[in-house]
Amino acid sequence: MTIGTLILLRHGESEWNASNQFTGWQDVRLTEKGEAEGKRAGELIKESGILPDVLYTSLLRRAISTANIALDAADRHWIPVVRDWRLNERHYGALQGLNKAETKDKFGDEQFMLWRRSYDTPPPPIEVGSEYSQDADPRYADLESVPLTECLKDVVVRFIPYYEETIAKDLLAGKNVIVAAHGNSLRALVKYLDNISDDDIAGLNIPTGIPLQYDLEMSDGKLVPTNPGGTYLDPEAAAAGAAAVANQGKK
Amino acid sequence: MTIGTLILLRHGESEWNASNQFTGWQDVRLTEKGEAEGKRAGELIKESGILPDVLYTSLLRRAISTANIALDAADRHWIPVVRDWRLNERHYGALQGLNKAETKDKFGDEQFMLWRRSYDTPPPPIEVGSEYSQDADPRYADLESVPLTECLKDVVVRFIPYYEETIAKDLLAGKNVIVAAHGNSLRALVKYLDNISDDDIAGLNIPTGIPLQYDLEMSDGKLVPTNPGGTYLDPEAAAAGAAAVANQGKK
Repeated sequence: MTIGTLILLRHGESEWNASNQFTGWQDVRLTEKGEAEGKRAGELIKESGILPDVLYTSLLRRAISTANIALDAADRHWIPVVRDWRLNERHYGALQGLNKAETKDKFGDEQFMLWRRSYDTPPPPIEVGSEYSQDADPRYADLESVPLTECLKDVVVRFIPYYEETIAKDLLAGKNVIVAAHGNSLRALVKYLDNISDDDIAGLNIPTGIPLQYDLEMSDGKLVPTNPGGTYLDPEAAAAGAAAVANQGKK
Repeated sequence: MTIGTLILLRHGESEWNASNQFTGWQDVRLTEKGEAEGKRAGELIKESGILPDVLYTSLLRRAISTANIALDAADRHWIPVVRDWRLNERHYGALQGLNKAETKDKFGDEQFMLWRRSYDTPPPPIEVGSEYSQDADPRYADLESVPLTECLKDVVVRFIPYYEETIAKDLLAGKNVIVAAHGNSLRALVKYLDNISDDDIAGLNIPTGIPLQYDLEMSDGKLVPTNPGGTYLDPEAAAAGAAAVANQGKK
């Protein structure tokens, strides 16, 4: 049985990455740097020789645009696309729109890191109907209820069953799958793939725009990596990028 | 029963539109002008108030990129996408890659117009394995055989049954559908929708980058337009654009 290769791709720099604001489900654009990251990601995929057969994206522009740019650069712009809200970034609740450095100053280091990295403590819920809330967004019209906040555990609960039903089945059918998503939805998936504990996942940071390759095999009915932790297609840039993510909130 | 609105969108100017070459299945890029046309198309869709629910594209970059740009500009970048080779441009056979003006000079006006506008006379077939042939292109690996040339009738035969099985069903389910495709695949669809004769279709030209809206109703088991010929979202630009298409081949 041939199992396909999984490529994870966190979107390139967005306008709110650049302005150091909590983004969550807010649908911001890529910066020019973010677009360049998408192109570089596509070139890395092309150089790797991996041929993606299907793309999964969130419903957010920064992931959709990154994937469009990357697949165009990789000459795989024509593959089928599946979009689903379950790949969305974690909903950041009432923090959406706030500056990260100002939030850290206001609430202190401990509370700031708890909101950012606690596995099961969500930020306060966003107010329904407020500027950065998504409760009236038409793309979520089919959801029973649109989240008002989420912790990483909530992302695991919404994303992993979907992964098992769709992406994992494609991989088992021998397809190479590219997943274009977000810092926290990809952390949820990596936690599952690499079997990382609720505590240890706090220390894992995924850099923007660098494809992360997972080679998989079946073990006890689950697809597990033969290369635990995955393999970045540009390891040096990935190490620098992960450090930059860890330093967010510093001025 | 609510029937969805159909929007047809011919891709913006491509590199080979600009250089006046027969393109067919050759996968060329948009020019900067073509990208701007895509953006303008998205703005027109947004201004119209029509909210596309699903996108159908060909497997060719110029249609895919035009749709990506237009839906981004219309804030509908997150809708589901279906890509299929049946929406591809007509395969131009051995003419692919040739300059239109030179071809006209070499073969004469009559032969040139026959190849461009005859309903059922295809150009000579392209040589298998030659520079502009698609017989080894991985995106067509699932086809029993990749076309070596096509007349407009061939496009009707491949596209219309697919339209009836997919796009028409979405319209009947009340979805607004945007179809991002090509001069001749859209001529095939318009011929069917407006019940245009094999002779009269020769005179129909579709301009690039201007959304063409069809409002539909059921009549004798078929979806037919309540606005025959459709409605361009920018009628003045459409008239100028159609004249430009009719003049191709002139130096």
